[in-house]
Amino acid sequence: MKTNMEWSAQAAKNLEAVRAGQPLVHNITNFVVMNFTANILLAAGASPVMAHAENEVEEMVAFAKALVLNIGTLDDAWIASMLKAGRKATELGVPIVLDPVGAGATRLRTEAAKRILAEMRVTLVRGNASEILALAGAASKGKGVDSADTVEAAAERAGALARELGVPVAITGAVDFITDGARVVRVANGHPLMGCVTGTGCGATAVIGAFAGVDADPVSAAATALAYYGLAGECAADGAAGPGSFVVRFLDALHGLTSEEFRLGCRIEAREGTA
Amino acid sequence: MKTNMEWSAQAAKNLEAVRAGQPLVHNITNFVVMNFTANILLAAGASPVMAHAENEVEEMVAFAKALVLNIGTLDDAWIASMLKAGRKATELGVPIVLDPVGAGATRLRTEAAKRILAEMRVTLVRGNASEILALAGAASKGKGVDSADTVEAAAERAGALARELGVPVAITGAVDFITDGARVVRVANGHPLMGCVTGTGCGATAVIGAFAGVDADPVSAAATALAYYGLAGECAADGAAGPGSFVVRFLDALHGLTSEEFRLGCRIEAREGTA
Amino acid sequence: MKTNMEWSAQAAKNLEAVRAGQPLVHNITNFVVMNFTANILLAAGASPVMAHAENEVEEMVAFAKALVLNIGTLDDAWIASMLKAGRKATELGVPIVLDPVGAGATRLRTEAAKRILAEMRVTLVRGNASEILALAGAASKGKGVDSADTVEAAAERAGALARELGVPVAITGAVDFITDGARVVRVANGHPLMGCVTGTGCGATAVIGAFAGVDADPVSAAATALAYYGLAGECAADGAAGPGSFVVRFLDALHGLTSEEFRLGCRIEAREGTA
Repeated sequence: MKTNMEWSAQAAKNLEAVRAGQPLVHNITNFVVMNFTANILLAAGASPVMAHAENEVEEMVAFAKALVLNIGTLDDAWIASMLKAGRKATELGVPIVLDPVGAGATRLRTEAAKRILAEMRVTLVRGNASEILALAGAASKGKGVDSADTVEAAAERAGALARELGVPVAITGAVDFITDGARVVRVANGHPLMGCVTGTGCGATAVIGAFAGVDADPVSAAATALAYYGLAGECAADGAAGPGSFVVRFLDALHGLTSEEFRLGCRIEAREGTA
Repeated sequence: MKTNMEWSAQAAKNLEAVRAGQPLVHNITNFVVMNFTANILLAAGASPVMAHAENEVEEMVAFAKALVLNIGTLDDAWIASMLKAGRKATELGVPIVLDPVGAGATRLRTEAAKRILAEMRVTLVRGNASEILALAGAASKGKGVDSADTVEAAAERAGALARELGVPVAITGAVDFITDGARVVRVANGHPLMGCVTGTGCGATAVIGAFAGVDADPVSAAATALAYYGLAGECAADGAAGPGSFVVRFLDALHGLTSEEFRLGCRIEAREGTA
Repeated sequence: MKTNMEWSAQAAKNLEAVRAGQPLVHNITNFVVMNFTANILLAAGASPVMAHAENEVEEMVAFAKALVLNIGTLDDAWIASMLKAGRKATELGVPIVLDPVGAGATRLRTEAAKRILAEMRVTLVRGNASEILALAGAASKGKGVDSADTVEAAAERAGALARELGVPVAITGAVDFITDGARVVRVANGHPLMGCVTGTGCGATAVIGAFAGVDADPVSAAATALAYYGLAGECAADGAAGPGSFVVRFLDALHGLTSEEFRLGCRIEAREGTA
């Protein structure tokens, strides 16, 4: 188990590696957040590409250091492309991060998320509490795509889910919770204003993708990415007059945060314990 | 007929109800404005969801307090989904707000708008002057999706259109005009900079959706939503250096405007008269 | 060959003509940049419309002063619509500007770009160095959609490419390079922060479309549009704290820049020479 200081050092190291390596992150994501996601990845120092055509995703993912699959605006053609890209990524060893947006809200989404988990080697799932509960087969209070459940409620199920799937799980909320079924890590960075802007969850998943492109341990990639993302949210909230100015400052903070500032502001909790 | 003061009280009450109830607004809308629409709804206190797949829209709309249909970037598959979602919403009594973007510009758009109006119980149509004239079967000067006609020209036809369709009509412009064919209400809030930003009309329609989720009278829902939206535009324009800073301040204002500030700044004209 | 002063006069004249004429620019573009592109065109004074359905593009392009085709998020249906719109634009004499996003990265994109160039009369191609090298059949270092090649490397091939295709070529980068195979023009306006924001290249192509709607010489339309765009970037960077505040200030600058400020700040190099 890493100490808090070791986590902070790893976090700063990962951010530096993203900025130095500019990992190409291939996103097959929803229409609502495509622009914001691309700008988040650019601000973080990564290199985003969006490509969804069934007859190009295999070629594109071959260039990528990570594949991010996000089911926020789904239809059957997009599911087919996600499966094709994901199978190729699995074959090539490219890490895959899944964002099961709205899982639990409709059968299409729940089943698409489960199929993705079944048909490729997913590196990590990042969702809100309702989405993770839905994947765990538990009743959730979610309606639409926003969570009505607490991270703690979902965290109780997350360890078993991670072990069953063989896939680490990250649940984001006031305090983020990450587990691979053995280790548990919590990240206390973040700010409530992030919930007033669409796509902040999707953006977090994309940044986990970028970090997974430079850190082979999914729990570590997710924890350090979420700490960076949350700290940028804290910086942005300081002085923001509402969600509009928050977004502007958030992109500035993602871009401007130094690795030393990140090391000092990073709040990854190295609490011992099992999932 | 409400007095101006009664309108202001209703307006403040509706905004409070949106913020307290966070109505889920299901949007089947165009690619250009999806992100902005979601952020506008979140800033207003509502809960947006975008879902367009034919095999999930019926499930999704069942959670919703309003359905917003926007034909800004259309194709046949999206029309089919809109019809399916709208028929389900009609069956469930979920209010439906239609934004006939570009009606009059192409046959596809004019016919899609008319089919939506024919095949479901639309609660209200919100368009610019050219779009409303197109629906009324009048020659419009519109080219593309921006209006080249005046609100007054369209207002002359709107009462008859509303009676014919049995659907209230809102025309937005320098002064907004709302009628159900019997009552006429005008809203003087707003600012010209709103016309320099894409999707402000679409966003207005979405906010009407949110207000329709808490106010069963479509004329009242539309008038109070447009007053709120326009007042946020006025606040945002004050100090903006152009359309970029306007958007930032607009989202901040939608989020920050108190119901008391709204009550005082609301300019709904309770002028007597028939359509 | 124009002198620098003649270029500056032409540049200011073109900007004035865009603002006076508000040319309708029909965009068939990618999902990532649709909103940003529309806001850029509005800020510049043009009138954007996005329409991609195969059964409306011919009607829509008939209203347009320019057609912008951008292959950034492609699939077969969109290619078919682009071809249909482009053939109609050719028939009507509407200028067509092509942005071959990611050409070279996948076969789908390279072939789509080549098919567009073969099946309609393209007025100008605007790409980054890797994309232009790919169209020229040269090995490029590009991965994904960002350029890994220098403008100078691509410029060496651009003259031959322009002559072979009969289509002027613009390569954007630190210094932009434009040639029709006979004339060569360089534009030194711009700022590195533009590369930290997604869609700035796509937006440049759209603005070239707007300028092509008022200037029949493609080299002149592209050079003046890129100078205007780059100068707005310079103004925006001055005082920006990162890519978030840069975007805000960029839209403000596109909107607020006077034609006199443009005339003075325009850095089009009238260096003699052939491609």
